[in-house]
Amino acid sequence: MECCLASLLRAPSLSIVLPGKSSRRSSSLHLRQLVGFHPSRCQKMFVPGFGEASPEAKAAANLHHFFTFLAIKIVLAQLQSYNREAYEELMEFVSRNSLNDGDQFCRRLMRESPRHKGLALRIMEVRSAYSKRDFEWDNLQMLAHKMVDESNTRLMRDYVKETSHIEDN
Amino acid sequence: MECCLASLLRAPSLSIVLPGKSSRRSSSLHLRQLVGFHPSRCQKMFVPGFGEASPEAKAAANLHHFFTFLAIKIVLAQLQSYNREAYEELMEFVSRNSLNDGDQFCRRLMRESPRHKGLALRIMEVRSAYSKRDFEWDNLQMLAHKMVDESNTRLMRDYVKETSHIEDN
Repeated sequence: MECCLASLLRAPSLSIVLPGKSSRRSSSLHLRQLVGFHPSRCQKMFVPGFGEASPEAKAAANLHHFFTFLAIKIVLAQLQSYNREAYEELMEFVSRNSLNDGDQFCRRLMRESPRHKGLALRIMEVRSAYSKRDFEWDNLQMLAHKMVDESNTRLMRDYVKETSHIEDN
Repeated sequence: MECCLASLLRAPSLSIVLPGKSSRRSSSLHLRQLVGFHPSRCQKMFVPGFGEASPEAKAAANLHHFFTFLAIKIVLAQLQSYNREAYEELMEFVSRNSLNDGDQFCRRLMRESPRHKGLALRIMEVRSAYSKRDFEWDNLQMLAHKMVDESNTRLMRDYVKETSHIEDN
């Protein structure tokens, strides 16, 4: 979408070229017609199997559960030092409930007892604050790019090493 | 890191205050000592249990596997229309091998046969191109923030509805 918008903004406006009339704009258009006008690349690779959702939405949903997991770890670490009772209660609840679905975990925690409800509200607040202020999104992107590059190089290097070794024997 | 740098840039330089000497800078320092000097917030929330790694690195590793999964889906969709034989071969390999570890999948695919090696190289190329050009990182961040906000609102609204209902009866 952004790509399409950017290409539209970059594309020079086209005017109707009348024969006999010559101007800088029309001669530039003629030149582009002669050399072939290539709009900037806009087509994205098609990823099937996501229906109405998108890979970004799927990744965001996974990150959402990950932020809840991190918020539980942050709150536990905070409680451990100054409120042992609440820490023990939350630890006991964590041992009994799966962390795979963050929202499901919070939903159950809120209904356990009024004290647990306070903990759930705190976890929800922390996951919101962490994802908006503390999580380094630029760093995530940089690390993911680096990881893909390094993995591709390593896989190819290992393969070459292995096949060279076979050829040597 | 950025936050620390910003606070350092904002913080006015401190000078040694000699008794008896008065200047605009020293009186400003005295004033700050009287009212209490609060540097801007720089401390991030501590997330325990990641050792030398970081939550960003963990999330990037998950995204890395996700990109491999997407690249396999993209290549399969491309092959389906113009190379049925290669499509069937890759589908058969996918049915026998787990997609949880993207690198492990590519490593095995490269060693299956020379034709499979070509497919593995293409998957590796696609995951790199997709993650760098086509994946909408800004959209991911926006969706994750929206998801946290909406989930928190929904969880609290459901709880209030439920407890109000109990009180009504």
